[in-house]
Amino acid sequence: MYEMHFAVPMAGAVLNGINTRLDPKTIAIVLRHSETKALFVDYKYMPLAREALRLLMDEVKGSMAAKSSIPLVVVIDDVDSPTGVRLGDYSLEYEQLIYKGDRKFVPDEIEDEWDPIALNYTSGTTSAPKGVVYSHRGAYLSTLSLILGWEMGSEPVYLWTLPMFHCNGWTFTWGVAARGGTNVCIRNTTAHEIYSNIALHKVTHMCCAPIIFNILLEAKPQERREITTPVEILTGGAPPPPMLLEKIEQLGFHVVHAYGLTEATGPALVCEWQAKWNQLSRPEQAKLKARQGVSILTLGDVDIKDLATMESVPHDGKTMGEIVLRGSSIMKGYLKDENATSKAFHKGWFVTGDMGVIHPDGYIEIKDRSKDVIISGGENISSVELESVLYKHPSVLEAAVVAMPHPRWGESPCAFITLKEDSPDHHAVVVTEANIIAHCRKNLAGFMVPKKVVFMDGLPKTSTGKIQKFQLRALAKTLEFTVRETSNQSNREEQDQFRDQHHEQIMASSRL
Amino acid sequence: MYEMHFAVPMAGAVLNGINTRLDPKTIAIVLRHSETKALFVDYKYMPLAREALRLLMDEVKGSMAAKSSIPLVVVIDDVDSPTGVRLGDYSLEYEQLIYKGDRKFVPDEIEDEWDPIALNYTSGTTSAPKGVVYSHRGAYLSTLSLILGWEMGSEPVYLWTLPMFHCNGWTFTWGVAARGGTNVCIRNTTAHEIYSNIALHKVTHMCCAPIIFNILLEAKPQERREITTPVEILTGGAPPPPMLLEKIEQLGFHVVHAYGLTEATGPALVCEWQAKWNQLSRPEQAKLKARQGVSILTLGDVDIKDLATMESVPHDGKTMGEIVLRGSSIMKGYLKDENATSKAFHKGWFVTGDMGVIHPDGYIEIKDRSKDVIISGGENISSVELESVLYKHPSVLEAAVVAMPHPRWGESPCAFITLKEDSPDHHAVVVTEANIIAHCRKNLAGFMVPKKVVFMDGLPKTSTGKIQKFQLRALAKTLEFTVRETSNQSNREEQDQFRDQHHEQIMASSRL
Repeated sequence: MYEMHFAVPMAGAVLNGINTRLDPKTIAIVLRHSETKALFVDYKYMPLAREALRLLMDEVKGSMAAKSSIPLVVVIDDVDSPTGVRLGDYSLEYEQLIYKGDRKFVPDEIEDEWDPIALNYTSGTTSAPKGVVYSHRGAYLSTLSLILGWEMGSEPVYLWTLPMFHCNGWTFTWGVAARGGTNVCIRNTTAHEIYSNIALHKVTHMCCAPIIFNILLEAKPQERREITTPVEILTGGAPPPPMLLEKIEQLGFHVVHAYGLTEATGPALVCEWQAKWNQLSRPEQAKLKARQGVSILTLGDVDIKDLATMESVPHDGKTMGEIVLRGSSIMKGYLKDENATSKAFHKGWFVTGDMGVIHPDGYIEIKDRSKDVIISGGENISSVELESVLYKHPSVLEAAVVAMPHPRWGESPCAFITLKEDSPDHHAVVVTEANIIAHCRKNLAGFMVPKKVVFMDGLPKTSTGKIQKFQLRALAKTLEFTVRETSNQSNREEQDQFRDQHHEQIMASSRL
Repeated sequence: MYEMHFAVPMAGAVLNGINTRLDPKTIAIVLRHSETKALFVDYKYMPLAREALRLLMDEVKGSMAAKSSIPLVVVIDDVDSPTGVRLGDYSLEYEQLIYKGDRKFVPDEIEDEWDPIALNYTSGTTSAPKGVVYSHRGAYLSTLSLILGWEMGSEPVYLWTLPMFHCNGWTFTWGVAARGGTNVCIRNTTAHEIYSNIALHKVTHMCCAPIIFNILLEAKPQERREITTPVEILTGGAPPPPMLLEKIEQLGFHVVHAYGLTEATGPALVCEWQAKWNQLSRPEQAKLKARQGVSILTLGDVDIKDLATMESVPHDGKTMGEIVLRGSSIMKGYLKDENATSKAFHKGWFVTGDMGVIHPDGYIEIKDRSKDVIISGGENISSVELESVLYKHPSVLEAAVVAMPHPRWGESPCAFITLKEDSPDHHAVVVTEANIIAHCRKNLAGFMVPKKVVFMDGLPKTSTGKIQKFQLRALAKTLEFTVRETSNQSNREEQDQFRDQHHEQIMASSRL
């Protein structure tokens, strides 16, 4: 995958890193929609590719374009695990292909820097995956931005815990090369593999979603290795709760927090650290660090606006508005989807769908996904703020808050929680809904306290590790009545049913 | 000047940082050629500006455009030295102007990134100054490149020893802002001011020509301050001799060597350091560091070519060719000079006029200015290589080698040397031409040994500190005969005469 990041553009083609956690049906849709000409498959994903190709063939069967719709397949055998398995009559092995290469090949020269370099399908939490198109110019500027924003120096040793199919590894596929660095690739993002590779290769940098923090923190003693020199972590996705940030830094990791999305070629804001903040207390530092920060250097503009008036919000840290972006590293658009593309932009700005505030120092803090804001009795409740309070509870491993319909207030917050397996501090204490609500009452205004707390064995997540709030919202919708009209028992049953469904999904995808 | 780097582009205008060491006549030419609309003058340069404006007025007198050719003048009084002196009826004081400013002013938005942002007149060692035009795009990419190439981290404390009128401070005017840094400006680049400001402000970065190394090394004990944390120096201009590099690093400076020219918006190559080189001996390190290096990240391409065939030279560290550049940060062209512009480019490449080699590791090393190569009996002699040997002599402060006509070999090398005032190691030794020639014979092939050595009290330099080889070449031309046909005495006289002329020039400009 790393080599493809250079070979494909040099061949004048467009790279489409496919999320390996997708189901075969979605992959078949992606292959067809993107008109894939060549498919490179790691031996580990052969069953997944075989099934996706079968579905693709079924779909195009009988159509005129049947044959041309089936891509050339190149199988990548690993050094330690050659399979010898090939897909179809014309499939090649990767090293074979390279062996056949023309050493005198002259790389394609880009005539227009706005030409596409990569396609990245969104994970499609709510709808069919959309193909986000990156230009050479956008990817290039984003790459420079992130080296700059993260202050990644020369010759980094970069550990790939972030998948390369995720916004081209937030462009660090190209960035590590630009810095003359070393790429450390691992097959499984387990605590053991992460810790032992950090120790073995003297890793200096890694990007990850906050889920990796949990993996690192929950590691068993025998899986851990001492971190002797600080490992720089760039994290994105959900704002990491201050408590989590603090704990991970105590292990020897140094966290920089970024915010972005596929449509912005990865991170668009970085929480640039200021030296004077080093004098603050650790919790104060963690609070500052949990903010999304300032625009990366090469992005044209970031602002928070009232979409109705397109007025910028005041820099007061209070007034919420929609985060909007513009600049070269914003996607060209969604492939073959003019409708979705034009919806994504408003008066020249890309609308992120995230709600935030601007602090007096110009730093942006996300308050919520616009669709995740809970509007209770006319008051906006930030689910992120509420979740950050929940994470402060010593027994809480994961927390997500969504809106639950409420006959009087319209909506009210409902919290979904996974408890730690053995909370060292609260060994004998059984944590109840009442405990959690009491904890919230101590730390939040009354109207923000969840009206309902649901315990789960694990929250539903996308293949990229994001909590799927739309699933929780679906469940929460059924809860209003159960809270009021049914016993705890039936409530429990619904939860079990949900959990089973969710489990089945996980099993379905891990089988492939 | 720093504020102008932001205010002028935000006003939609073009910035022209004028070299304050130029004579009034040249400044008048620059003002007229650039059609300057507003002239900002530091109080220190009032006499210079007054004289330049007088010459400009004389020149345009009687022409239709007379009045519009005279710019608005804004005088900048320093806090400690307000003069109250104004130029002309309409001149303003800078703070007055700011006071009159409109707080609601909306900065100009660039419609085309190729629009000019700055004009930088070359110092014109050989001809009338040429106005090099930078685009917004070029300046922007160059700024990012140099932050990246130098690995300048967040919140640098930057000491301005490099004048801002020199390629806009190699774009660090903008770069320091992009990094949220602090600018330390000094009026005089004396050892005392440099050392004391480094100590006072905890300077982390500075750019300078190698001439500053001499200032730092020759400082008297009472002028020095201990360098407690390393100061990063980015240096350009002449390749610094390894000995000099070594000495300056022993003082606590860490040197990165870059190569560039006005037409490339400053540095275009940076000698990127490789961690494995840290294991080499200091002299080996200094040798590697004296190379010009690899292309900055945002430059399209750097190559060394045979201009006749446009073939690239092999990466053998031996085959010399012309260094050529292309990419967005190359100038748009020379203002109102299509002829010079088209001469500067060859088949899409900007021709630097510098000769170099490419080493097997891809690093470029300059061997000479193409016009400085000495061709002796058909052999190319690199004046830079010869100078680097001369600098190894313990008594040599400055050295420059040029071609001297030779009846048999066509050309032969002639060395111009300034000796140190008191060489600690060689207190009682009088250094003679024979000493220098013997030193060269020990270290160089016979044909490369200078046929003539001329001692001077100081080598002639441009206002930006570059040694003016064209002056030395003019002198060397007269030497062939004196060597062969006249006594040492008359040779000495010619040198004295030259020195006097040169001194007068220096005095003429320092009087202003």
